[in-house]
Amino acid sequence: MTDKMEGPFSCEGMAASNANGNHKLRKFERRALQPKDVAFKILYCGICHSDIHTVREDWGPVKYPLITGHELAGEVVAVGSSVSKFKVGARVGVGCMVNSCRHCDPCVNGTEQYCENGSVMTYASEDRDGTTTQGGYSTFNVVDEDFVIRVPDAIDLADAGPMMCAGITVYSPLRHWSVGPGQKVAIVGMGGLGHMGVKIATAMGAEVTVITTSKDKTEDAKRFGAKHVILNHEGVDFSKYKRTFDFILDTVPYRHDLERLLPMLKMNATLCVVGIGKVTEPHQIGPFTLTGSRNSFASSGIGGIRETQELVDFCALHKIRPEIQKIPMGEIDVTWKKVFEKKARYRFVIDMKM
Amino acid sequence: MTDKMEGPFSCEGMAASNANGNHKLRKFERRALQPKDVAFKILYCGICHSDIHTVREDWGPVKYPLITGHELAGEVVAVGSSVSKFKVGARVGVGCMVNSCRHCDPCVNGTEQYCENGSVMTYASEDRDGTTTQGGYSTFNVVDEDFVIRVPDAIDLADAGPMMCAGITVYSPLRHWSVGPGQKVAIVGMGGLGHMGVKIATAMGAEVTVITTSKDKTEDAKRFGAKHVILNHEGVDFSKYKRTFDFILDTVPYRHDLERLLPMLKMNATLCVVGIGKVTEPHQIGPFTLTGSRNSFASSGIGGIRETQELVDFCALHKIRPEIQKIPMGEIDVTWKKVFEKKARYRFVIDMKM
Repeated sequence: MTDKMEGPFSCEGMAASNANGNHKLRKFERRALQPKDVAFKILYCGICHSDIHTVREDWGPVKYPLITGHELAGEVVAVGSSVSKFKVGARVGVGCMVNSCRHCDPCVNGTEQYCENGSVMTYASEDRDGTTTQGGYSTFNVVDEDFVIRVPDAIDLADAGPMMCAGITVYSPLRHWSVGPGQKVAIVGMGGLGHMGVKIATAMGAEVTVITTSKDKTEDAKRFGAKHVILNHEGVDFSKYKRTFDFILDTVPYRHDLERLLPMLKMNATLCVVGIGKVTEPHQIGPFTLTGSRNSFASSGIGGIRETQELVDFCALHKIRPEIQKIPMGEIDVTWKKVFEKKARYRFVIDMKM
Repeated sequence: MTDKMEGPFSCEGMAASNANGNHKLRKFERRALQPKDVAFKILYCGICHSDIHTVREDWGPVKYPLITGHELAGEVVAVGSSVSKFKVGARVGVGCMVNSCRHCDPCVNGTEQYCENGSVMTYASEDRDGTTTQGGYSTFNVVDEDFVIRVPDAIDLADAGPMMCAGITVYSPLRHWSVGPGQKVAIVGMGGLGHMGVKIATAMGAEVTVITTSKDKTEDAKRFGAKHVILNHEGVDFSKYKRTFDFILDTVPYRHDLERLLPMLKMNATLCVVGIGKVTEPHQIGPFTLTGSRNSFASSGIGGIRETQELVDFCALHKIRPEIQKIPMGEIDVTWKKVFEKKARYRFVIDMKM
């Protein structure tokens, strides 16, 4: 860092140049410190399926070049004049959001992800100054301290990144729907989100079943805490699992057959999707599917900042860590291909020093 | 009735002869009294959109001739040796179910409509003796007393029929999702179910908004208790209603655009559909639609027997009655056409004496 400690800060990152990715090095500036801003070196950034969805324009049009990444972990190098929560040298993380309105009910109640005026997301979002936010596949960021998470010493910084999105995205619905001891919970899809879901739901005391299309993940699922694994293939008879689960957390990031999964819910129970597919491919639910057991189909988005801190502390307490594979910045394109081909075991994390 | 009071009982009804209805008189027998059976003259039977869906095979194949009708009201003429709840002359009703397994958890808990072993429906269902149940477009029925509802003197028998399906189908979800004072509730579609929903939710203390495609129902909606009416037409901007309602009860019996309705839910709130469309036309929900406010999309089926009795008593207490138009047996086909064309104001009831 050759900048003055007030910024603007020079930064470089890997920007997607079109819908296929084609990441190229881009040099740009991060804003000068505002009084409540924290400036930090990004040391690691997880690769989330959302990054791929965004760049492929599965969720709508995108302005290229775009730097994605919303599982940031790093070290504070400078703080604004009014920052009270962080000091230089602090170990920190940033997830999917970098701002929100702060005054609506959801914001006041610690659920900034449901801000009535629209949260500012870490990338591809319109920032308050009209610029487009750029994400964590980069070396540096400047974020308001209210959207920065403290990483306890017990957590490796490389592991912290995936907690910021994958971790909180599964933790929040498990908490909201009160998962706990005595309950049978299914996790559908065991990728970045799903494998954290298995570990977290197990730590919460639930009996966890993994429903996966990948037979070779069976042993891992049990190692992560699952009691049962159900292989989900076309033609497999799921009728024996009718009304089995108190809660189903569905992490599959593409449209898939919900008619097979929803009947597995006990009466009055909920299936919550956290994987988000293409906007052109809506979920499809038969007119009777939810009626027979008064079930709910729900969806939940990441978690609030207070809750993200709670998740990180929960991981520290329960010694939960994501299973990661580190890659260098230069390998993003080839790694995305692996994610798309379900080859992640279970989260790729960019190591800025590699 | 010329039968002996033990039966089997001769009976006649109007049976649909094919998917177009084409109702024709059919003479048949109702079973002889079992110890817990109640035999009753059917004096009135409501016409429900489900009757039409069933006969049109929107929900699957049907064995014709079939007598539909599951909003029965009448008078007891004979009781089996162990019947304790009803005497000859009692005013009674029967809704969508005539039996269930009695020993699963849902049955034991008074939610027989969610019987794990499958409830026996009032028509088009396989009865315990292997025959196909025949419904209420007929003069007589024999039903186990546990599935018979007592009709208080304060309720006209002609009004009682529509409570057995339309009434309980809206009451049960309003109760389950704890609708009450201080809440804003939307009722989507104001037909047989919807108009009862408006009256019941209003009596529960909620502030009710009707969302309808029929402009000419506006005055009626207010007369039934609604505070607001929103006209639902293609192109109308619903964005100003974002996050308005604590609960939405959706009674539309065909697939319709949920993307317009779901964003009207407050954070953490539920839209429950009770109208059931064609099995070939699943509900469609965009991948982000529920995520932004952590909403649930649910469905509920009729109600249990205990709850149906509660609804009937609730209607008596609050002087709630369905808006009905009586028709004779011979006019079923032409009346179905009116229902289909949204011309019911608001429930047609067959009067067996007409």
